[in-house]
Amino acid sequence: MKIAPAKVINVCSYRVIYGDTDQMGIVYYANYLRWFEKGRSEFLRQIGLPYSIIEQQGFSFPVVEVNCRYAQSAHYDDVVRIETELPELGRASIHFRYRILREADGCLLATGTTKHACLDRNGRLKRMPKFLQDALARAGN
Amino acid sequence: MKIAPAKVINVCSYRVIYGDTDQMGIVYYANYLRWFEKGRSEFLRQIGLPYSIIEQQGFSFPVVEVNCRYAQSAHYDDVVRIETELPELGRASIHFRYRILREADGCLLATGTTKHACLDRNGRLKRMPKFLQDALARAGN
Amino acid sequence: MKIAPAKVINVCSYRVIYGDTDQMGIVYYANYLRWFEKGRSEFLRQIGLPYSIIEQQGFSFPVVEVNCRYAQSAHYDDVVRIETELPELGRASIHFRYRILREADGCLLATGTTKHACLDRNGRLKRMPKFLQDALARAGN
Amino acid sequence: MKIAPAKVINVCSYRVIYGDTDQMGIVYYANYLRWFEKGRSEFLRQIGLPYSIIEQQGFSFPVVEVNCRYAQSAHYDDVVRIETELPELGRASIHFRYRILREADGCLLATGTTKHACLDRNGRLKRMPKFLQDALARAGN
Repeated sequence: MKIAPAKVINVCSYRVIYGDTDQMGIVYYANYLRWFEKGRSEFLRQIGLPYSIIEQQGFSFPVVEVNCRYAQSAHYDDVVRIETELPELGRASIHFRYRILREADGCLLATGTTKHACLDRNGRLKRMPKFLQDALARAGN
Repeated sequence: MKIAPAKVINVCSYRVIYGDTDQMGIVYYANYLRWFEKGRSEFLRQIGLPYSIIEQQGFSFPVVEVNCRYAQSAHYDDVVRIETELPELGRASIHFRYRILREADGCLLATGTTKHACLDRNGRLKRMPKFLQDALARAGN
Repeated sequence: MKIAPAKVINVCSYRVIYGDTDQMGIVYYANYLRWFEKGRSEFLRQIGLPYSIIEQQGFSFPVVEVNCRYAQSAHYDDVVRIETELPELGRASIHFRYRILREADGCLLATGTTKHACLDRNGRLKRMPKFLQDALARAGN
Repeated sequence: MKIAPAKVINVCSYRVIYGDTDQMGIVYYANYLRWFEKGRSEFLRQIGLPYSIIEQQGFSFPVVEVNCRYAQSAHYDDVVRIETELPELGRASIHFRYRILREADGCLLATGTTKHACLDRNGRLKRMPKFLQDALARAGN
């Protein structure tokens, strides 16, 4: 039921605002999870299946696990590059992998993963919908 | 249709976390609006009408205007006191007034107001429900 | 000491993520203040004076007042357009004015203003630095 | 250099506000990391060593890794209980472990861990200060 590692990599960017930082002068650690969300959202749009469409079809992908390793700090006004891959599509789950880099010099700031369940409108675990597999296949995975 | 100024004042408190601060070393200005929300939520609970009940009855009170004046900064680990009043209940709107103080010395940090519309499940403007007026009256307003 | 209304208008955009919304299905009201910050940050960059430079020069512009009127709701995945003007530069204060529009149809979602003090490194009120006036003048104001 | 598992467990609580939720009607996944921060902050206060004191002594404990598993959703107005332990104090690192439970029925909502480096004022890795070990020992660990 597993498919081969994704070949699609979505790349998007974000400029850090004051509201993302904390008094240590760096981006607050929870905000990297917002960037992960932006990354997977843009990934799905890139393969032609925006998350809003997935919701309209009656599915949702709540996060069941997240991991993030922080290598270097992001600072105010930095443009960060968010790279997102979909390494694994399970029977009823989906995994994303992320890299956060500083745009200016390519320095790796953080890496992370999220795992999501596939639920129907009633919150029950469902098999991953075929239209997602098709969209991934069409996108070259 | 206006009723007299509220006599109920809700007082609740919150301890500032790192995630609330920014690199200026003070609480980020948008976070005061979270405290206003906490204040009006506790105000409604105090008069016996938690917002979750209001929603179950088919009403919602989205914010249509907010104002905040910042007098002194809140810092990491400060306990702030949030004082909330309901100065005005209109035909289809509700106003709240807030004061944010530093618990340790009573220093006034900020004052603010929010104005809310009263909407039904379909997002249409509705007359303020009688059960809210009754709850306020029972609470001594 | 007042100068004529600014002619520069900065226009930038932002795509709403899940983390910006609340359970009413719309963007949480405090998050508009993050967009205001993005707007004034981009405004300052546009006139050649990024806020990080202002800080390096020993000045800071903390918010002393904010006002926001919410006309229509922003939703998940909406691209919002942030328009920022600097209508007034006082002796020791600076005002910004904002309009938030839905990119897709130009619908006005919110308007707001912020007022900022001009402080030096020691947190004392200072006269607005001449390099800011010069940058505005060079930008055509 | 490792010390035995901590016996201190800090327990604190937090009531979910609207601003913590997203349009799925549940708490946004990044906000659990704010609760972890609150938990470890209260843990350090409980052993007599508030983080603000640690900072005054010239140390900081930035997060280098976080993991969170989400079991059940937290909802608006839920009171969540945050349980924090310090299972491991390394030579130059510190680990915290968290459990998030719904206060009303004790249901386990999430578990997580954070790992922190110990840095000095210049951002260099330092041996964990003795005053932290002493505070832990005094607290019964």
